[in-house]
Amino acid sequence: MLGILRTDYMRAVPAAAQPGAETAEQWKNVEVNTISCSFAGLSPLVGDFHQYLQQHQRLVTQTRSADELSRTITGNIERSTSGVDVPAALAAAVAAWRAQLAAHYGRFCEDYSRAHPGVNPTQLQPVVLVVVQENERNTGDQYKLLFELLRAHDIRSIRRTHAQVHDALELVDVAAAPGADRVPPFAVLEGQYLCAVVYYRSAYVPEDYPTEATWRARLLLERSNAVKCPSVPYHLLTFKKIQQLLFSDPERVLRDLGLGGDAAAAALVQQHFMPQYSLNRHEYAAGAGDPEAYIQQAIAAPDDYVLKPQLEGGGNLIAGAEMVALLAQTTETDHPALYHKIRQEYILMRRINFPVVTGVVFRHGEIHVLQQNLCSELGVYGTILSDGRYDASHNAGQQQEQGGSHHHYHNAVAGYIVRSKPADVADGGVMAGVACLDCALLVD
Amino acid sequence: MLGILRTDYMRAVPAAAQPGAETAEQWKNVEVNTISCSFAGLSPLVGDFHQYLQQHQRLVTQTRSADELSRTITGNIERSTSGVDVPAALAAAVAAWRAQLAAHYGRFCEDYSRAHPGVNPTQLQPVVLVVVQENERNTGDQYKLLFELLRAHDIRSIRRTHAQVHDALELVDVAAAPGADRVPPFAVLEGQYLCAVVYYRSAYVPEDYPTEATWRARLLLERSNAVKCPSVPYHLLTFKKIQQLLFSDPERVLRDLGLGGDAAAAALVQQHFMPQYSLNRHEYAAGAGDPEAYIQQAIAAPDDYVLKPQLEGGGNLIAGAEMVALLAQTTETDHPALYHKIRQEYILMRRINFPVVTGVVFRHGEIHVLQQNLCSELGVYGTILSDGRYDASHNAGQQQEQGGSHHHYHNAVAGYIVRSKPADVADGGVMAGVACLDCALLVD
Repeated sequence: MLGILRTDYMRAVPAAAQPGAETAEQWKNVEVNTISCSFAGLSPLVGDFHQYLQQHQRLVTQTRSADELSRTITGNIERSTSGVDVPAALAAAVAAWRAQLAAHYGRFCEDYSRAHPGVNPTQLQPVVLVVVQENERNTGDQYKLLFELLRAHDIRSIRRTHAQVHDALELVDVAAAPGADRVPPFAVLEGQYLCAVVYYRSAYVPEDYPTEATWRARLLLERSNAVKCPSVPYHLLTFKKIQQLLFSDPERVLRDLGLGGDAAAAALVQQHFMPQYSLNRHEYAAGAGDPEAYIQQAIAAPDDYVLKPQLEGGGNLIAGAEMVALLAQTTETDHPALYHKIRQEYILMRRINFPVVTGVVFRHGEIHVLQQNLCSELGVYGTILSDGRYDASHNAGQQQEQGGSHHHYHNAVAGYIVRSKPADVADGGVMAGVACLDCALLVD
Repeated sequence: MLGILRTDYMRAVPAAAQPGAETAEQWKNVEVNTISCSFAGLSPLVGDFHQYLQQHQRLVTQTRSADELSRTITGNIERSTSGVDVPAALAAAVAAWRAQLAAHYGRFCEDYSRAHPGVNPTQLQPVVLVVVQENERNTGDQYKLLFELLRAHDIRSIRRTHAQVHDALELVDVAAAPGADRVPPFAVLEGQYLCAVVYYRSAYVPEDYPTEATWRARLLLERSNAVKCPSVPYHLLTFKKIQQLLFSDPERVLRDLGLGGDAAAAALVQQHFMPQYSLNRHEYAAGAGDPEAYIQQAIAAPDDYVLKPQLEGGGNLIAGAEMVALLAQTTETDHPALYHKIRQEYILMRRINFPVVTGVVFRHGEIHVLQQNLCSELGVYGTILSDGRYDASHNAGQQQEQGGSHHHYHNAVAGYIVRSKPADVADGGVMAGVACLDCALLVD
């Protein structure tokens, strides 16, 4: 199973003070995206664009006075490697699929020929099936990755919606080899393609399943032997519940389940999570905390909290007056369903007090200077390819040392993106027209 | 002086026969562009695009039958180097300008300070001034070159129209050094920029000079010490008269003036010119040819000829019925001015019988199959940087061998572009929406 993740961070600074010196642990987790991980393709191009600007700026200032120069920030623009690393992860998944299915491919060909007389099954092409949203607008980002997959790895990809998949997908069962387990069926699309990897760029919001047929398409793909990206387990990482558990149950969830018992690594990771709380009283041991008390704190100090539903992607946060109204006015007697939904599904998180700076954005063909009104979010891409087996007897350190117990074929950072937006706009992403793509300037 | 040229060729084949094997000498000169040399920036990107298509095509066909494969053309797509070579030529011109003016720069600073008290002349930035057309549409091509000039050579460029230049250009004279010649004045634009190179992407059609002010701007730039691209001598190469002379007076013009007396090189070059004729009887020695006879031949066999005015860029050819009407109906008595203009300015050229093939073009977002209706034109970029001196006592071979007599700092091929268009459309370029950018597939 493959994960192409983007974990977003914002820097948290003391509320009243000047930002002061930056430390790594100030960067706090905002969310983990497992499908809505856009801009891995475009991010390097933003770096190139800023590289031109920086070089131009240096020429403009090279003859200026020392006083003017002191106001120029120098440093190195870090070009994101995501445009190369993400396609490499998809290629690694195709290679793993080939290796895993090689022993079954001959029988698949026999079975497929029997079911489709006259068709030569060796002409079915292994592809990366990209499941896209209806009317996807962010196609440039996707094609940048898929062209690199073609160029560098000689792997073809096809982009289809769930509805298109439903109309043309066939699962082909393969008889088990003597004494061996049966493998899941091969996924043949449109009588032409063999799906080696299913790369979801859709299916992270309920609107991506407008019909029963789209749900059935998803189920068929999940049942097939194609490598899913993300797999259902990796997709679970996106839920705010998991991030809350990483903070509130660090021993069991972060250290033992996530990091194979490595307490030092768990401590390093946990400091990047803001305090966040379940609102479900059944999850609290007696005397160990009261979600109703957290709710009252949020109503009393709404600037310090944000309410997060179990959704991925921007635009879903509830904060400020809206949060107060929702929490204060939803009583168990008047709105029992919503009341319980909030307590079972929503997470209450301490709000990140991010630093606000002056910056310039280029949007809709115009340059806007945002005076003390720009904030930035750092998204770090990561790719992970695993066989899905979990062996609790090995911790992370041992996994790396003992060849036989590796579960991960591949597990690495894969570049980054910065998105900057007006600080006085509560929420909203790049595709919503609020935020801009940005990049990091590394300074000493 | 700098030339960034694009010489266009089409392949000429025997009219009645199959094209047969291709030979180098079949490629005939169509025109020499000295300003209207677009697509040096975009050409490499077309190569990349076709590289993707070829790689995709190879994946699609790798499992197909031998019969299908035999219909697939294989070969290597040649990525044009123009996106790198043209900026390198501009950078070489800036370096030559610096070297040539270094001895005068100190006095320039003194004189400029006197005329502009309080201004520090060392803050004037040397730039490449790109003179562009009003409402230029082909900006992507230009910026691709200028970004590379910045990235690879750290040289800044500014794009201005002639009208903008006129309003903000100052020529700054510099006193001659003792015992030395006076240098032409420095060109200071907008009180900020020192024009090292003037790169014309405008001023090749009369419409580029809508006012007297634009003519004056051109004159000021020509009088300055900036390296002009093209210089007036290089610009002359674009005139059809020169190409006609290269064909009809190969000894004097091609061998002696163009190639320093190298008869072998002249013979190689001349075979790439179609027969073409002056229509001016004063240019013919007694008994050596009669332009009125050529005109009668063109009227009798209009498919074999094309009439070319002294203009650069596509869309100016006169052929077919229009040519017949112009030549036959313009009599000396009825239209004396036009009659003499045709005979003094126009060139009559044997038409190139180019091969027509089946091809596919992608235009306005749609794919069009042109069944036996596609023809291609090869444009070869060349860059030449010279000090403008001409020493007739050295031929080309000696110039290369004797260090002291070099006139050319730089003289090299600089990539290529192919433009393909429907064969049944007489004339029209890419920006006119008729032709498409294309690239070459090198086959054995």
